[in-house]
Amino acid sequence: MKRSRIVLGDNQYGKAETHVVHVSRQGWRHEVTDFNVSISLSGDFATTYLEGDNSKVLPTDTQKNTVFAFAREAPPGQPEEFALRLARHFARDVDAVARARVHIEAVHWGHIRDQGFAFERGHEKRLATVTCTKEAEWVVSGLTDLVLMKTSGSEFHGFPRDRYTTLEETHDRILATAVTARWRWSESDVDWLEGWNAARTALIKAFAAHHSLALQQTLFAMGEDVLVRQPEIAEIRLSMPNKHHFTVDLAPFGLTNDNEVFYASDRPYGLIEGTVTRDDAREPGLAW
Amino acid sequence: MKRSRIVLGDNQYGKAETHVVHVSRQGWRHEVTDFNVSISLSGDFATTYLEGDNSKVLPTDTQKNTVFAFAREAPPGQPEEFALRLARHFARDVDAVARARVHIEAVHWGHIRDQGFAFERGHEKRLATVTCTKEAEWVVSGLTDLVLMKTSGSEFHGFPRDRYTTLEETHDRILATAVTARWRWSESDVDWLEGWNAARTALIKAFAAHHSLALQQTLFAMGEDVLVRQPEIAEIRLSMPNKHHFTVDLAPFGLTNDNEVFYASDRPYGLIEGTVTRDDAREPGLAW
Amino acid sequence: MKRSRIVLGDNQYGKAETHVVHVSRQGWRHEVTDFNVSISLSGDFATTYLEGDNSKVLPTDTQKNTVFAFAREAPPGQPEEFALRLARHFARDVDAVARARVHIEAVHWGHIRDQGFAFERGHEKRLATVTCTKEAEWVVSGLTDLVLMKTSGSEFHGFPRDRYTTLEETHDRILATAVTARWRWSESDVDWLEGWNAARTALIKAFAAHHSLALQQTLFAMGEDVLVRQPEIAEIRLSMPNKHHFTVDLAPFGLTNDNEVFYASDRPYGLIEGTVTRDDAREPGLAW
Amino acid sequence: MKRSRIVLGDNQYGKAETHVVHVSRQGWRHEVTDFNVSISLSGDFATTYLEGDNSKVLPTDTQKNTVFAFAREAPPGQPEEFALRLARHFARDVDAVARARVHIEAVHWGHIRDQGFAFERGHEKRLATVTCTKEAEWVVSGLTDLVLMKTSGSEFHGFPRDRYTTLEETHDRILATAVTARWRWSESDVDWLEGWNAARTALIKAFAAHHSLALQQTLFAMGEDVLVRQPEIAEIRLSMPNKHHFTVDLAPFGLTNDNEVFYASDRPYGLIEGTVTRDDAREPGLAW
Repeated sequence: MKRSRIVLGDNQYGKAETHVVHVSRQGWRHEVTDFNVSISLSGDFATTYLEGDNSKVLPTDTQKNTVFAFAREAPPGQPEEFALRLARHFARDVDAVARARVHIEAVHWGHIRDQGFAFERGHEKRLATVTCTKEAEWVVSGLTDLVLMKTSGSEFHGFPRDRYTTLEETHDRILATAVTARWRWSESDVDWLEGWNAARTALIKAFAAHHSLALQQTLFAMGEDVLVRQPEIAEIRLSMPNKHHFTVDLAPFGLTNDNEVFYASDRPYGLIEGTVTRDDAREPGLAW
Repeated sequence: MKRSRIVLGDNQYGKAETHVVHVSRQGWRHEVTDFNVSISLSGDFATTYLEGDNSKVLPTDTQKNTVFAFAREAPPGQPEEFALRLARHFARDVDAVARARVHIEAVHWGHIRDQGFAFERGHEKRLATVTCTKEAEWVVSGLTDLVLMKTSGSEFHGFPRDRYTTLEETHDRILATAVTARWRWSESDVDWLEGWNAARTALIKAFAAHHSLALQQTLFAMGEDVLVRQPEIAEIRLSMPNKHHFTVDLAPFGLTNDNEVFYASDRPYGLIEGTVTRDDAREPGLAW
Repeated sequence: MKRSRIVLGDNQYGKAETHVVHVSRQGWRHEVTDFNVSISLSGDFATTYLEGDNSKVLPTDTQKNTVFAFAREAPPGQPEEFALRLARHFARDVDAVARARVHIEAVHWGHIRDQGFAFERGHEKRLATVTCTKEAEWVVSGLTDLVLMKTSGSEFHGFPRDRYTTLEETHDRILATAVTARWRWSESDVDWLEGWNAARTALIKAFAAHHSLALQQTLFAMGEDVLVRQPEIAEIRLSMPNKHHFTVDLAPFGLTNDNEVFYASDRPYGLIEGTVTRDDAREPGLAW
Repeated sequence: MKRSRIVLGDNQYGKAETHVVHVSRQGWRHEVTDFNVSISLSGDFATTYLEGDNSKVLPTDTQKNTVFAFAREAPPGQPEEFALRLARHFARDVDAVARARVHIEAVHWGHIRDQGFAFERGHEKRLATVTCTKEAEWVVSGLTDLVLMKTSGSEFHGFPRDRYTTLEETHDRILATAVTARWRWSESDVDWLEGWNAARTALIKAFAAHHSLALQQTLFAMGEDVLVRQPEIAEIRLSMPNKHHFTVDLAPFGLTNDNEVFYASDRPYGLIEGTVTRDDAREPGLAW
């Protein structure tokens, strides 16, 4: 009987979470860029796994240094731009690298009123992921931790019932979710900031405007709106937990509760995930 | 030799983190109140510790129910108001309770544009802590997770040096912090929302305007500004980590770095804590 | 010019993080099972996204109920067994479901000494992920949060240097990592507990015994050892952060530091990920 | 009318979370010490708050350096010992310091089987807090994240009922908690490791053995057992959340549930806090 041979499969390595802050100073007006940068490389690295031969392994420490040096060599700009610069460098300048992926989580520092060099940090995270090979590149943008709620315009009924179903149908429920959205651009010559703002606005407006018969339907409506408004976006992937708000039964206390008082539950939660795309979208390749 | 007797010391109990969401509906215009309520009671409860006699122990489950019922019996209003209602109830209506403390963490849900019933959640936490006895009450308000940065106007020098000191003096450093502030009111008849907004604004403006020779000095200036603008505030306690941003040494790469590229460090961090008060402030009593 | 049509792509939904605890009582000897169960279903669900037609959407609330009911109908057993029961049910009993995936995070409650019904909880998480279609099924087991360190037997040198490389070569460094491992079984008739224990032991022993020239090499050695000892495992995927411990420069204080005092850094960290498999392993299908 | 003057109140500063790892090598047998050290100093520091005069402010950076240097100058030993060395240094060698407090969170690295230099990390945190003035010192030890459960021997009944009470009495419930315990020693000449182990064992055994009529009663019994067995401990403070496990109602599915299947809830939770002390214990002074 032939014995199987044990072999190396897919692999990647890199430096995760290099937290770089860049300050640009134009007289009394400063601007702050705050990027948490994660890099992963794959390619001709089998010998380090199999033999401990590191002759092709660009140290992750060097990758960290590169992040800082690149931020100095030219202003980092938008997250997508900085990720493109870094990913192109690793994919093209390092022989052994077949695919470089750079992921950035950016937070916004807004000026405090009319102060040129004092800032308050935002909390929402803007995301950018760039993947480069020696010949091609893919850009994905996104956001996370955008928490939305509708106190009207949400129903859920008409679902099938099996022996374990106890849920009552409702024509008026609270719908709350924390949106994580990532969208793939069909080109890399985009006004990234304007595009990001437009996508974010479309997501929020669609959530607010859409009369919901299911969180799934709302998810699709949100993704569709982004694609309608942004022809350069090929595809959007949405992950939206259903953050349940349960109407509290106040009858034992002689009180009614006409959808006024809710218990916000942590776990378990529904989790709805879906992709909205174009029928003629180019294949995603290595984008994700 | 006399043997010591083992006795019960300070104790308290209660229900923590009842997360109640209240929706108020005025036609097409809704408002959302989102409170995470923690209750702790102390008083005549020794027999439950010593004998398991629960005859005076109002169940924490009942405390949770009370939060929900109270939110229905009247609109919760500001966090301080809701905490006052609850704390007064437990202190005055439950015989065994000598001291009731109610702590609320509130998050803000802002309307999405002109939508009456669609909301986006903020991230900063507004705090309120009310302590009631049968005769007296104390109100503390506050905030946390307010992250601020100055990219100019911050120095640190003139400090003593011992054999373990390597830090260089600086006349231009990044100053970044995450403010937790809690202030004690000298009265409980206050416009809580206006007062909270004014205190928050004072903190931010003072941080931005103050030329800093030490984070300690900035802390005092921030607290002082709050007290100057708000005569009803007796005392403010500030806890401010020094979120270090280190200038990266880029010389090995042939690059200068004139305070442009920073590494944002997580740990360790400086932690500066201080109280700013009035010389004639009433004793804090059980406020904290 | 033809306009693209916007369409639904991949999608799934389900109930995440139903935290069920089961107590089995045999006289004075109890056993505790603690599972955090996440379910995701995909299949014929397009109409809910496109039209809000929920006629095929088994509510996530029902999925939660099913977890609890199944835990009562028969003892849950090993995580893989419980996940198999649930995934088979959803895939086979619900017409619209083409693929059901059930993921369980289990924590261990060990008896306190000779006490039959008192327990202390462990912290490490045991993982199981089962994926079922109407015809086939795949089982993946794993673990996470296994934190290991070697204080000798680890080197890193021979790596390439570019203009951003400053790292010094080392023949003696601390190697520390937090292992996340997930392995795919080639069959579903396995003694899951024994198999899990054997895989865990192999990972730890290989880490300890292996003289490391790179964390990549250690990763492969660990995966290889699991496959050598467990013929029923087709493939193992490992994700191992390099938790850097930097030797502190104590020279300014007139002290040497011969790899004795280290600063344990949080971020950034190296992240090494790799798959170890068999040359004749069956295709993974929908396992991951 | 006299205007109040705004003044500085209590204040302290220091370096938090210096994460030092020490490796001691005796031939092939290594030992690892892993301490997360937080320092806070108070004393004659008003001028830095009021005027930005740092002439007495030992930099927090120096405090960090001191941690690393001290770990090299002599083996760190037990957390209490290392905290004593550091706190004495800051209180006695730095003129301006009136009170130095050093808090350590320690995690255990256990040897992997018979391997001298390979380790697996534990998860529970051992705590030590030492406070020193120029004349006196106080030592507090403790632990956190010790998660315990009883599946029998726990009741809760006989509590008062008001109009918001719906809880049913029970003579058989699950009791689960995550213990945080901190105890104050009456002397500082103690075998810290043996003492810590004995206290931990006493807490666990008392939890297991005690028939509980209330979590409060269990808390007292646990604290009492520690004091009975350890005459050098003056006082113990316990904080114990009631991690609710609710019996799931399975009647809708035609199933009974005789305390077999539970839903483990995250929030809200009961929180029981209490001190167990001796009637002749010395005053705690600045210990806490």
